[in-house]
Amino acid sequence: MTKLRIGQGVDFHQLVEGREFWLGGVLVPHHKGALGHSDADVLLHAICDAMLGAAGLGDIGLHFPDTDNTYKNIDSKILLARCVELIGGKGYQVVNVDSTLCLQAPKIKPFVPQMQAAIAGILKLSAEEVSIKATTTEKLGFVGREEGVVAYASVLLEKAD
Amino acid sequence: MTKLRIGQGVDFHQLVEGREFWLGGVLVPHHKGALGHSDADVLLHAICDAMLGAAGLGDIGLHFPDTDNTYKNIDSKILLARCVELIGGKGYQVVNVDSTLCLQAPKIKPFVPQMQAAIAGILKLSAEEVSIKATTTEKLGFVGREEGVVAYASVLLEKAD
Amino acid sequence: MTKLRIGQGVDFHQLVEGREFWLGGVLVPHHKGALGHSDADVLLHAICDAMLGAAGLGDIGLHFPDTDNTYKNIDSKILLARCVELIGGKGYQVVNVDSTLCLQAPKIKPFVPQMQAAIAGILKLSAEEVSIKATTTEKLGFVGREEGVVAYASVLLEKAD
Ligand SMILES: [Zn+2]
Ligand SMILES: [Zn+2]
Ligand SMILES: [Zn+2]
Repeated sequence: MTKLRIGQGVDFHQLVEGREFWLGGVLVPHHKGALGHSDADVLLHAICDAMLGAAGLGDIGLHFPDTDNTYKNIDSKILLARCVELIGGKGYQVVNVDSTLCLQAPKIKPFVPQMQAAIAGILKLSAEEVSIKATTTEKLGFVGREEGVVAYASVLLEKAD
Repeated sequence: MTKLRIGQGVDFHQLVEGREFWLGGVLVPHHKGALGHSDADVLLHAICDAMLGAAGLGDIGLHFPDTDNTYKNIDSKILLARCVELIGGKGYQVVNVDSTLCLQAPKIKPFVPQMQAAIAGILKLSAEEVSIKATTTEKLGFVGREEGVVAYASVLLEKAD
Repeated sequence: MTKLRIGQGVDFHQLVEGREFWLGGVLVPHHKGALGHSDADVLLHAICDAMLGAAGLGDIGLHFPDTDNTYKNIDSKILLARCVELIGGKGYQVVNVDSTLCLQAPKIKPFVPQMQAAIAGILKLSAEEVSIKATTTEKLGFVGREEGVVAYASVLLEKAD
């Protein structure tokens, strides 16, 4: 039997005035930011969920409940590092991550290398094994109206021998 | 060449008063339920579609058309069992399933172990190989307005030697 | 370590009167078509993005910017062929593709075999290794109102020895 496992994640946050906009572990300058209990980093949350799901470890809401003050405004890079430990405890490591950020504005392309470096450092991967893609929704829906942001992530895990 | 294949599924149903709410093979108490020709189990449908897609067998609409009275109000666990047979006929079995239910209410966490047991039994997997995650959309869109429910699933299949 | 990599893509386009409707490399008769700089083939774009993401090669916006007149009204099959070259340059080939088209109308089932043939030809796969599923959103959201179309794709890549 294969030692590989597949995982997927999707996360949603509202965009509001007066919040910092954390994406992929990076502070992105914008007049709005994502609303949430933690730093509301939609991309890191989707990746966390994909890792937990692949390893059969539940989801981000189970491990880091938004009713727990420990996680209030927490840097989601800390949550991602904890997910690396959790999957490691079951013998898994990440092979690669692919992801898509859906947001109408701002352009995040200039920030992608920084995001890749931040995530790859935590996952102990090279930057090219952490793919971050971006798309608008062509003005459609709540993403198109700049009311919210969505991230999708897929991960492949492998069990160490 | 690898004996592995990847599959993905996404399914949508309206939420309406006066219908039972079947999710992951479990009846979830709620004032609304999902509308559809079958029992409208959005999670099982997404998993069925991911399995069929990975094996190159078309989709749920091809195998179980909503114009066929055979499938009227049918328990989607029967459809899932049929998908196991269909992929088995091509030599495939499921390695693992990861999925996310997007719904604003109710909280489905208490029902996840039952859902995992129901699905794992049909797929002949252990419960930890059937991951069911849940998230709200933070009040955004039709899911946020409790007009509908969405499920995403990813599966990994392996061909037997 | 495994020679496999996972990728995912999602793409969005508005549906408007007076445009041809290209889906999966096939011209689908309909009173509306997808709006975009290229031929706006939402399915091919999602597959391109999944391939690029799996290989750590960025995204479709990076390689084929919509500010570049080279890509104005371009047949997206040309972009897909270019993605095959790009991943091939890193030693990867596609194992299988699974995808879902989300659109309310028209019925695309009759066109799926043509789409599979078109894509499989470019990817040098058999038709059954290129899965194209379709679903409505049950009238929900911008897809349900026939304002737009969404495609999701997952791919598995393998590195040649
Ligand atoms: Zn989140
Ligand atoms: Zn369904
Ligand atoms: Zn596109």
